Amino acid sequence: MGPIEKLVLALKKLPGIGEKSATRLAYSITRWSKDDALQLAMAVTEVKEKVKFCAECSNLAEGDVCSICCDSRRDKTLVCVVEEPQDVQAIEKTGSFHGVYHVLHGALSPLDGIGPDEIGIEALFARLKIGRIRELIIATNPTTSGEATALYISKFAKPFGAKLTRIAFGIPFGGDIEYVDRSTLARSIEHRSNLT
Amino acid sequence: MGPIEKLVLALKKLPGIGEKSATRLAYSITRWSKDDALQLAMAVTEVKEKVKFCAECSNLAEGDVCSICCDSRRDKTLVCVVEEPQDVQAIEKTGSFHGVYHVLHGALSPLDGIGPDEIGIEALFARLKIGRIRELIIATNPTTSGEATALYISKFAKPFGAKLTRIAFGIPFGGDIEYVDRSTLARSIEHRSNLT
Repeated sequence: MGPIEKLVLALKKLPGIGEKSATRLAYSITRWSKDDALQLAMAVTEVKEKVKFCAECSNLAEGDVCSICCDSRRDKTLVCVVEEPQDVQAIEKTGSFHGVYHVLHGALSPLDGIGPDEIGIEALFARLKIGRIRELIIATNPTTSGEATALYISKFAKPFGAKLTRIAFGIPFGGDIEYVDRSTLARSIEHRSNLT
Repeated sequence: MGPIEKLVLALKKLPGIGEKSATRLAYSITRWSKDDALQLAMAVTEVKEKVKFCAECSNLAEGDVCSICCDSRRDKTLVCVVEEPQDVQAIEKTGSFHGVYHVLHGALSPLDGIGPDEIGIEALFARLKIGRIRELIIATNPTTSGEATALYISKFAKPFGAKLTRIAFGIPFGGDIEYVDRSTLARSIEHRSNLT
């Protein structure tokens, strides 16, 4: 196999990159400077070497425990369950959450062979068992698999006694009721809140 | 900068990959096996080390001259001018061209700062000057910049005496006249050929 075919094969493993895109990317790399190519190669290796998963919450961490779980100012009794480390980043950027996280690294999807054992649900129940969690905010995506995961967790987490909540879904801030899709609008009416 | 940010920065240099896609790809690499990551890193480095540009036609080559220019059975008097090495691959797959190529590595696009000096037009004129070229088939894309490049080459290549041709554009094989776009249809009528 030639060097370009090898690169195409490696790039095809990236999500959403098929044969055609991988070929286009590979050819563009042939035109890069040697420095740029070396930087990419080193960055890929470094990520695998340095980035580990937090022993507490499974978030990405550079040590054994992630910077959020290490932070003594965070409320360890409030746990937000998310699908991916990117979701942690997104919530952190809002600056409005001061608890800790639990990263599942996926969502239940029986058709794709992803059951509770494939994602971090057991680890979540283990954390609940210790009993120091006051509230569990389930922040999985509003998709079929995200909803299924939320339902599964809420069902099996009930006996542990923690308060279970789900993040709110509705019309996005700045959105226009006229153009919002039907499911979102229906949900936003169903989950209406009281005006004080 | 953390290892993930570094990887995002490196991936953003790929064409069509912005901040969001690069982040998504970087996070997916954190979940790869160490072997897969190492393979990608090695493939990137290898491409830069092994793939060079052919001294004759600027096509990608593993030695000094590409396999097509080395091939004694190819007609060296017939040169097909293309924008990218991928175009060479595409034409080679048809098996219907037995001449050699000239790869420009781009097309004229003054608004993006790409003039004749940025692409391999000088090298093409140098090949024409030697005078062994009988016919130049201009196979740049049917886009604004591809057409501009074709026009530029045909204008300045005329004095060299080689026959200048442009590949045919029209209704794609298996296409449906009813659904073909207006420009293609107009071109296909304009460039109609005689029935013998």
